[in-house]
Amino acid sequence: MADEKQCPFCDCSERVLKENDLAQVILSDPHKVPGHLLIMPKRHVEKPWELTHDELAAIFDLIFFVEQKVIGKLGDGCDIRQNYRPFNELGVKHVVFHVLPRSQDDYLYKVSEQYEKDLYVDLDDMERDAVIDLLK
Amino acid sequence: MADEKQCPFCDCSERVLKENDLAQVILSDPHKVPGHLLIMPKRHVEKPWELTHDELAAIFDLIFFVEQKVIGKLGDGCDIRQNYRPFNELGVKHVVFHVLPRSQDDYLYKVSEQYEKDLYVDLDDMERDAVIDLLK
Repeated sequence: MADEKQCPFCDCSERVLKENDLAQVILSDPHKVPGHLLIMPKRHVEKPWELTHDELAAIFDLIFFVEQKVIGKLGDGCDIRQNYRPFNELGVKHVVFHVLPRSQDDYLYKVSEQYEKDLYVDLDDMERDAVIDLLK
Repeated sequence: MADEKQCPFCDCSERVLKENDLAQVILSDPHKVPGHLLIMPKRHVEKPWELTHDELAAIFDLIFFVEQKVIGKLGDGCDIRQNYRPFNELGVKHVVFHVLPRSQDDYLYKVSEQYEKDLYVDLDDMERDAVIDLLK
């Protein structure tokens, strides 16, 4: 309960741009790119796997609504990101999905993402077997 | 039809680690981080908003299954990413969700993501009004 009382996303009705029964959209502030939107369940959910199918459907109804509104206006495409990072103790715990309008070679790409190209390596058999075991 | 015939995710049954009626999991190869998994609908869907509620539920059943398996083993948290980037003409068009095990100050953070901190700026009123208009 203490977490819910202090949660900025449990008490942000004046920032809500669009909503349905179970989910809502607000603008990220501060934001990473123009048109950076946050879509979240209205219920205080901290672990993504605690979302119900109905909440997922409500969240994605809003994500797909905003994607189709911003594409062609604020970007040529869109990223959806959900970051579950319990190690970030200062972060907001309420599950949130980010929608980021994206375009080729945009600022986000130039500032950071271009360096991720160097991370790609071929999967080796030992790692494949380890993950297969883990998912059993 | 031509796109489906050439789609690597429409013909990857030998790579599938886990599946349900409507969705499947494979390992990303090449991959960005150890345990980088791809979850996708079995149907060839190119635009995320063409996913049905049933497909979303099936995809997220698998995403949440793998998240709970890898957290504590391959990372302390997890990112989910879905990138709709039609400007990337060489990319695979079949909608895919990435699951990336993450930990504090991991390699992905050090190589690229740390630079995103500099991108955060406060939202200004003009941009807020423009996005509110766009979502009407």
